[in-house]
Amino acid sequence: MNRDIKNFKDHIRFIKGEVEKGLKKLPLNDIPEYLYGPIRYSLSGKAKRLRPVLVHLSGKAFSVDPSILMKTSLAAELLHNFTLVHDDVMDNDKTRHGQKTVHEKWDIPTAILSGDGLYVLSQLLLSELNSIIHQRFNETSLILCEGQALDKSFEHESNITFEKYIDMVGRKTGTLLGLCSELGGRLSGQSNSRCKELNRYGFTLGLAFQVQDDILEIFGEASTMGKTLGSDISSGKQTALTLLAEKNDSEGWKQFRGKALALKEEERMVEFCNYFKSMGILDQAKGISKKYFDESFSSLEAFPENGRSELKHFINYVMNRTF
Amino acid sequence: MNRDIKNFKDHIRFIKGEVEKGLKKLPLNDIPEYLYGPIRYSLSGKAKRLRPVLVHLSGKAFSVDPSILMKTSLAAELLHNFTLVHDDVMDNDKTRHGQKTVHEKWDIPTAILSGDGLYVLSQLLLSELNSIIHQRFNETSLILCEGQALDKSFEHESNITFEKYIDMVGRKTGTLLGLCSELGGRLSGQSNSRCKELNRYGFTLGLAFQVQDDILEIFGEASTMGKTLGSDISSGKQTALTLLAEKNDSEGWKQFRGKALALKEEERMVEFCNYFKSMGILDQAKGISKKYFDESFSSLEAFPENGRSELKHFINYVMNRTF
Repeated sequence: MNRDIKNFKDHIRFIKGEVEKGLKKLPLNDIPEYLYGPIRYSLSGKAKRLRPVLVHLSGKAFSVDPSILMKTSLAAELLHNFTLVHDDVMDNDKTRHGQKTVHEKWDIPTAILSGDGLYVLSQLLLSELNSIIHQRFNETSLILCEGQALDKSFEHESNITFEKYIDMVGRKTGTLLGLCSELGGRLSGQSNSRCKELNRYGFTLGLAFQVQDDILEIFGEASTMGKTLGSDISSGKQTALTLLAEKNDSEGWKQFRGKALALKEEERMVEFCNYFKSMGILDQAKGISKKYFDESFSSLEAFPENGRSELKHFINYVMNRTF
Repeated sequence: MNRDIKNFKDHIRFIKGEVEKGLKKLPLNDIPEYLYGPIRYSLSGKAKRLRPVLVHLSGKAFSVDPSILMKTSLAAELLHNFTLVHDDVMDNDKTRHGQKTVHEKWDIPTAILSGDGLYVLSQLLLSELNSIIHQRFNETSLILCEGQALDKSFEHESNITFEKYIDMVGRKTGTLLGLCSELGGRLSGQSNSRCKELNRYGFTLGLAFQVQDDILEIFGEASTMGKTLGSDISSGKQTALTLLAEKNDSEGWKQFRGKALALKEEERMVEFCNYFKSMGILDQAKGISKKYFDESFSSLEAFPENGRSELKHFINYVMNRTF
């Protein structure tokens, strides 16, 4: 392994460790256990912590005070966890970060309330910071809600296009990563236009991440167990790959899909993989993901020179992930 | 009717009308309809708007700029509606403000997401204000979550005392009314200790309101239809009256309750009324409500002299309510 990359992975692991410590040290009350028990639980899962790590990298590039940076990064992680706890109820997901989702372990009321609590705690962490930080967090939160609303309404829509999907994904995943990469600039008082450029780094990284996620869901490690694809396609949930298939080969895809759904799960999996490969859809999706990664690379110039190398490594870290 | 009181009722009606207009003029997007449709709907019910009215009365007493006051009052109403939409899911309530609850008209995911959106919008309204206002809103929100957590955990607890109940009610109802009465002081830069006294006015008013609510639920107009009591007592939900009965006459109340629950709904209603009257529990509850109203009256001195008369009328308005 390249020594730089190895050092960088250690660096990420170090920041992640600090974030985990920060989460454990949050001054949470013990009671009511009904509220704070599930909040602690939802923060204790095996999460990637990509968002707070990105806040640290962006903030370091702008020499932001470390304690302010830590608070802001924890606020971003709490905000992210708030959306996960609520989205998991809405999507009826059973597992998150290697453990049962909150509504699965307890019940829906517990998940609603602890999600609310996570959001409020995220806001409270920002109390001492100036109002533009609050405002950008809340503008971002509203777009996250819009993204989830689009995702839910797509379940009952027959004419979703790839472009609509990318718009939805941008709101759900791009927006918050965009905020995280912008925060270093905001916390050091950079201009709005500079902050918009900084945001672009994380926003496009988020789009690349999501398209890549849709690919890994089928062609990644987990897929050998035939776990995810079946459930996603059976429930009619669209991904970048299915929407590209629909775009390129509408009639053929419809016919293929009908036949494939009649197969047993393992065979179905193999058929879908073959279809996406042979029709060039896998390559097309990889190309789109690469295009967004490239856009993220080309936003590096918005950062001060001394921070660019780490932020470049961060893109590579996401691009070559096996997680 | 006393002319002062009539004039005051017109005054409240005027403020309420302005708040309604303000809510209609909120710059909400049209799409995604999945998010903004239910948000508009939940704000269009027949609500009392006590919280924003109180913000206006408190702010006027401190000569706060009217446009800032309007934004802050709308933020308080949005925050309140966020808690209602989520609490209604958690408590499985069917009706709110004279119309179906959001989860009843749509579904649970829609209610979770539109509740989240209401909270975010409430925060965004406060963007331009200084950070102590944000902080006080979020400290209040966390206590609201704690209150709801206590309320939910009481459902499975057998040893709830009247004192624990008042603590829970204080968090659920007192805290936000406290914030509303405090905001005039906060927006005009009063000291922390002064603001605490201002908070006391709304906090104790909230406690008085809630105990009164528990009385009206049984002895008020709606009760002649035998509507609420049956469902509350059958579902084992405690109120100020049932907890006072348990405190005063633990064994007798348990026996009476067992017998009464076996009766038909209308008879059961009459029996409960007779029990609470004959055992002196109605009078005791009225006395407790009056004690809190009196505490609210005695907090009037924290306000500037020119505002006290309106805030005194406001207590009377709540005390003599038929709504």
